Formats: sequence, structure tokens, C-alpha cells
Amino acid sequence: MTDLNAMGQAGRQASYQLAGLSSNVKNAALLSLADLLEQQSAAILAANAQDIEQGKSNGLTDALIDRLLLTEERLGAIAADVRMVAHLADPVGEEFDAKVLENGLRLRKRRVPVGVLGVIYEARPNVTIDVAALSLKTGNACILRGGKETTHSNKALTAVIQQALELHGIDGNAVQSINDPDRALVTQLLKLDRYVDMIIPRGGKGLHQLCIEQATIPVITGGIGICHVFVDQSAQQDGAIAIIENAKVQRPSVCNALDTLLVHQAIAAEFLPKVATQLHQSGVELRLDPASQQILASHDIKKQAAGPDDYDQEWLSLTLSVRVVDDLNMAIDHIREHSTQHSDAILTETLASANTFVGAVNSAAVYVNASTRFTDGSQFGLGAEVAVSTQKLHARGPMGLTELTTYKWIGEGDQLIRS
Amino acid sequence: MTDLNAMGQAGRQASYQLAGLSSNVKNAALLSLADLLEQQSAAILAANAQDIEQGKSNGLTDALIDRLLLTEERLGAIAADVRMVAHLADPVGEEFDAKVLENGLRLRKRRVPVGVLGVIYEARPNVTIDVAALSLKTGNACILRGGKETTHSNKALTAVIQQALELHGIDGNAVQSINDPDRALVTQLLKLDRYVDMIIPRGGKGLHQLCIEQATIPVITGGIGICHVFVDQSAQQDGAIAIIENAKVQRPSVCNALDTLLVHQAIAAEFLPKVATQLHQSGVELRLDPASQQILASHDIKKQAAGPDDYDQEWLSLTLSVRVVDDLNMAIDHIREHSTQHSDAILTETLASANTFVGAVNSAAVYVNASTRFTDGSQFGLGAEVAVSTQKLHARGPMGLTELTTYKWIGEGDQLIRS
Repeated sequence: MTDLNAMGQAGRQASYQLAGLSSNVKNAALLSLADLLEQQSAAILAANAQDIEQGKSNGLTDALIDRLLLTEERLGAIAADVRMVAHLADPVGEEFDAKVLENGLRLRKRRVPVGVLGVIYEARPNVTIDVAALSLKTGNACILRGGKETTHSNKALTAVIQQALELHGIDGNAVQSINDPDRALVTQLLKLDRYVDMIIPRGGKGLHQLCIEQATIPVITGGIGICHVFVDQSAQQDGAIAIIENAKVQRPSVCNALDTLLVHQAIAAEFLPKVATQLHQSGVELRLDPASQQILASHDIKKQAAGPDDYDQEWLSLTLSVRVVDDLNMAIDHIREHSTQHSDAILTETLASANTFVGAVNSAAVYVNASTRFTDGSQFGLGAEVAVSTQKLHARGPMGLTELTTYKWIGEGDQLIRS
Repeated sequence: MTDLNAMGQAGRQASYQLAGLSSNVKNAALLSLADLLEQQSAAILAANAQDIEQGKSNGLTDALIDRLLLTEERLGAIAADVRMVAHLADPVGEEFDAKVLENGLRLRKRRVPVGVLGVIYEARPNVTIDVAALSLKTGNACILRGGKETTHSNKALTAVIQQALELHGIDGNAVQSINDPDRALVTQLLKLDRYVDMIIPRGGKGLHQLCIEQATIPVITGGIGICHVFVDQSAQQDGAIAIIENAKVQRPSVCNALDTLLVHQAIAAEFLPKVATQLHQSGVELRLDPASQQILASHDIKKQAAGPDDYDQEWLSLTLSVRVVDDLNMAIDHIREHSTQHSDAILTETLASANTFVGAVNSAAVYVNASTRFTDGSQFGLGAEVAVSTQKLHARGPMGLTELTTYKWIGEGDQLIRS
């Protein structure tokens, strides 16, 4: 039986050592991890084959099997990512906001690890390594809970990680994984506030909802993007079509892909047929409001009337909701009502419209004349991406290494008392 | 019947306007609020008198009655605080981390209000004004829930606040208070995640625990301080006595006051009698571990043996737990086990001890040769204090205006698509 309390305690204990490690030691362990992943690929792939076999006999879809699958080549790519993390700058230990106060206290903030992270994700063995590498780099211990379909792979990967840690004198409990399929353990992990400092769910809406409702630990919610593009009256139309196609078609299955297109009524009759034709050629199906239905009535494209819930859909596929709006304010109201505050864009050549939109739309990322697809740690130059936060505290949007840290205040005096 | 959902919705709606207000308008409303508090003091004091009368007939302690009581003078002080907030710098709108990415995206972060704050506190009418002023200053809407003993006062104060808002064309729903004593409303507020972005409890352990367990909204926990001072072998002993007395005696009822004194065994026999004598003169009662009991056996001071839970007490009174420790590591272990990660200090002249302590003790504020009493927004030069956070995400330690904000990413391109 899995003793989560003991795991939490062990993770907390390991976090003390981790917080004090130099970047050199952490990076050396990361490079060893990359090497071991390649050297021990046979054992890892054998464990993964067991998961694949079970998955097939349990009737997993081809898409899920593909997510689950490790190959020599994929392992190589994972190892390369770990080496990349080793070469990123280490945010831990940075000191900032230093000042000497009038009362004589010499005060500064120091960036420190958060402590122990609880990460809950789906049947993706690559996430196991990814999260372990980012946690180690930032001096955090982590307790991982991957999808039950990937138990054998995660066991094998965790063994390799712990071997890499121990090679460099690091407590192996710095990275632990829960390999017991009992679902009650997830709820238990969410309430382990005595030992776990932060919960990061990486999965769908159901998982996020579970975490929000059950956790007694701060949760970084995110990754769900109902994303909008509003085409203003003055938009440069060729550029708009290119951006909309990019946002919708380039990778429809991800959270920063476009879900709803809002078009200013003044240009709808001219613009909608052009963009619809282009999207039709890319295989996009449209869900239309009455106004756009009328405009596109004679067009032979994949379309249907938008249902009542269609503006609250994260499509994750080649489907796009469309609505004609009276003006900028109606676009803003629509976005406030339906956006998950992930990524929303305005396409306009009017400065006042751009400024109003950027001020009024309170999403993690707000764009002017650019694709929503940019919301991504590597696109934003963060080097790594832990998650994309759509909640407002601690971090918003793509979270890099720095967002896995917090700070403490350090005050020094010369026998200083408060007067 | 209080319709919390409608209040949430109204607060959210008000937050849209608030987020776009200039500092000038917000400051003007704050100055009007200060004036109105003084001009309408008769009505406010009459409402307060009703609470006082009810409180007395309900048998509230003198201390609680005193907390509840407003006077002309106290109202004047509250108004002065509001004027002070008006004169602080407004963090909203600040832009930072601006860069042009290799992909051509012009990216920056903009500081924005959090949105809608839910603040739950005790029977302290001054907090109503305090929180309203800080929320308004940072462009946040707030829903306040004060102690039920202060309903009449809060109703009167909220009316004055809304009057000040409306004088400047600001939606009165920017500051709402729940004046219905039904306790179920607290739990309901904690789950109003559709409209409320952040919960700030200002109260005791029970309230914090309730929020942690029930909230589906991020909670800023804090304000509970089990604070330690470790006197190292090399400490300057006269300075140490002054710091310990300051930390324990200056204001024992607050969260940054000292709770546990740890003394290095090498100096315990010499140091403990000196500090105990001084503390005795200030009326402090000691809870002693066996080693310190032995050292202080012949001293005629207020003392008793420390019970098993005494090291987990936030005393909030003139009581102090004492323990002799073998060395620095044992002090660190004790603090890791018992501290609430609020404020902990080392007194030492040894650089290596100071560095080890500061690195190993992960509290919101860690001190070297200074009193724990400094952990305070105004002492830290933040201008205002919303709360003292002892959790690790978003903000740690004293929270000022900036900590009531978050940021959004703004990305601008010239018809830019992701390649």
C-alpha cells in the first residue's frame, strides 16, 4: 500500500537538501540523467512495452497509445530536452529588491525553491522526465502522479532519475512517483498540505476541476484555452486571414489554438466569405451565429448553426465558432463572458481599438495583430515551460523556471530592535 | 436574503471599470472617503453604538468591545490612513520585462488588478475601511465579510464608501459588504470562484483552516506566527537580550512576536539566567525544557515545564517557550518542525552560522541580529500592509499594494504568425 504521508515527509526532507545545492551539482545530475536515459533505453522501452500491451488489451485509442509510446528516438529527444534544461540559467539564489531601511534594517529578497511540488498528469511518460528535470533544476522536490496506463514506464523512469540523483549525492526522494493506480491517492495528494506546497495539474478540465474543489494546497490551474480573435473594422484583411488560419489550423489540438472568431459587422459581409473559403480549404468546420449564417448562406463550406454551448467550447480540433459583433465593446463583452483568460487577440489598424482591447480583456496573454499560438514558454523565450497558468495569482501565462520559485525576505541588523 | 451570486456578479462588473480608472480618479475617491468619514461621524458612531450595546448584552469581553469601538478620534485616525493610501504610488499599469522576441513579437508584462477580492475578518470596523481603501487604490473590487458583531458599523461604513465612490462616477458595487450574519455565507463566498479571484482571511487559525479546506479560490494564508530566535554560541549577549525582550515584550499580541527561544548549549548556563531575569522584570512567564529548567532551577521567576504542545503555540501573550539546543543544526531542525514560516532569527557573530541559518530556514522573513518584530508592511517600507502571507505562492511576508496586483502579457506584432 502506498503511504502518501511517508512520501510527503520524504519529499519535504529531500527539499531541504535540494534548496542548498549549487547549480553545478544540479546540472551534473541532469546531464547524468540524460546519459542514463540513453544508456538504459532497453530497460525503459521494455517497461513501456508492457504499458503499451496492457493499453491495447484495454482498448485504448490509437491516439492514447501513441502518447504512451516511447521509442529509442523519442527517448533521445527527451534526453536532449534534459540537457537543454541543464544549460538554462538557474533562478535560485538570485537576490533582488535590496534596500537599507530607515530603521537600519538591511533587507533583501532571495529567490528560493517553492519546496515540494505535486504534479498530476495523464498517460505521458515524457512528462515524468520533463517535470523531474524542471523540479530538480529549480531545487524543488516533486511527487509525480501520472496516468495509471503508464505505471510500468513511470516506475522505470523514476528508477533512472533516482539513480542519476544518487550518483551526485542527492537524496533519491527528491523525485518520487505514485505508481499505485488507486484513484483515492489523487485526492489524498491534493490534501497533503503539511508537506506539499503547490499542485500542478496537467490535463483536461475534469482534472483541473477536481484539483480546484479538493485541494487544500495552492493549485496552478491552466492549460484550458477558449481563445478568441476579434477582427476589427480597420483590420488588414489579408494579414487577418493569415493569422486566423495560423491560430486555428497550425496545431488545433493545443490550448492556444483559436476557438472563436468575432468579426466587426461593418466588414463581415466582405471579410467572412474570404476567411471562410480559406479555412474550408484547410478543413475547418464553422459554427455560425445567425448573422454569419446569412452572409455565408450560399457558400459551399463545412458549416452548421452554432448551438447554445458552442461559444464555451475549447474545440481542440478543426472546428471554429463564428460570431458577428456590433462593435469593439460587444467583442469585449463576448470575450469577458466566454474566454478562459488564456489568449485573446484583436486584429486592427486603429490605435484606440488596440489600446481599449488590451486594457479591457484580462487574459494571461492579449495580442494585437499576432496569432494566439504564441502563448508558449519557448515562443516567449522562457527556455522551458512548466505549465500555462490561467489563474491570476503567482504566475500567469507560460510558466518557466522562475515561476517554480518563490522568495524569502532576509533582514540583517547590528543588534537591531524595533522602536 | 443575501444573494451572494448576484454580489459576485456585481463585483465582477465593477472590477471592469475599476481596472481602467486613472490613479487620479481613484485617489480623489479615497480623499472623498476620508472627508466623508469625518463629516458623517455622527451617523457612523450611532451605528457603532448599536453594535457596542448588542455586544455588551451578548457578553463580549472588554477586549472585543474595545476592538469593536469607534470614537471620533479613531475615525479621524482611520481617515488619516485613507489619505495616506491616496498618496502612495499606484502599482497598476506599470509595464516590465519588455522585450522583442526573435520571432518578432513585441512582448511585455503589464501590472493589472487581481479582480475581485473576498476578505473575511473579525469584528474590527477599521478593517472595513482599510481593505476598501487598499482595494480601491489597486483597482480591485472587494466583497467584505466582517464579524457579525459589527454589522451595524459595517453597514454604515459601506454606505459611506459607496457614497465616496459614486461621487467620482465609480460603480458602488466596487466595495460590497455581507451584512447577513448567516455563517453559511462564508462557505459560499469561499466557493464563489466564478466571480472572486482571491480570498484574504484576516483572523485566527480556525478561520485560516476553514478557508484552506473549503475555498475553491486561491487563499492568502498568513498572520499566524510561531516565531523563533536562536542564540548562537558567538552571539553578542547584551544585544541578544535586548532583541529577545523587544521581540517578546514590545507587543506580545501580534503575529511577529517571539514564541520560542532556542539557546546554544555552550552558552546556556551563562546566558539563560541573564535573559530570564530581564524577561521576568517585563512580566514574561517561561515554559522550559529540562536543560533550561535545570539551569534556572534556583531562579525565582515565573516559569513552568514546557508541555508537549508548547513549542507549537503562538502565544500572543507574555509567555515564552525555551529550549537548549546542541548546536545550529538542532536549532534549524527545531524551527523546521515548529515554525509557521513567518519570522525567525539567528543571533550570532559567526558568518558561517548566519549564512547556514539564512539558507536553511525557509520562513517568509529570516533575520540576522535583528528582532522578529520588523516583519510588517510599514517597517519594510511598503507603505501599507494588506496581510502577512505565510504561504509560498504569489507573495510571502508583508503584502503591500503591489501584492494585490497580477500581470498580463501583452504581445504586439505586424500581422505576425507562428512559424
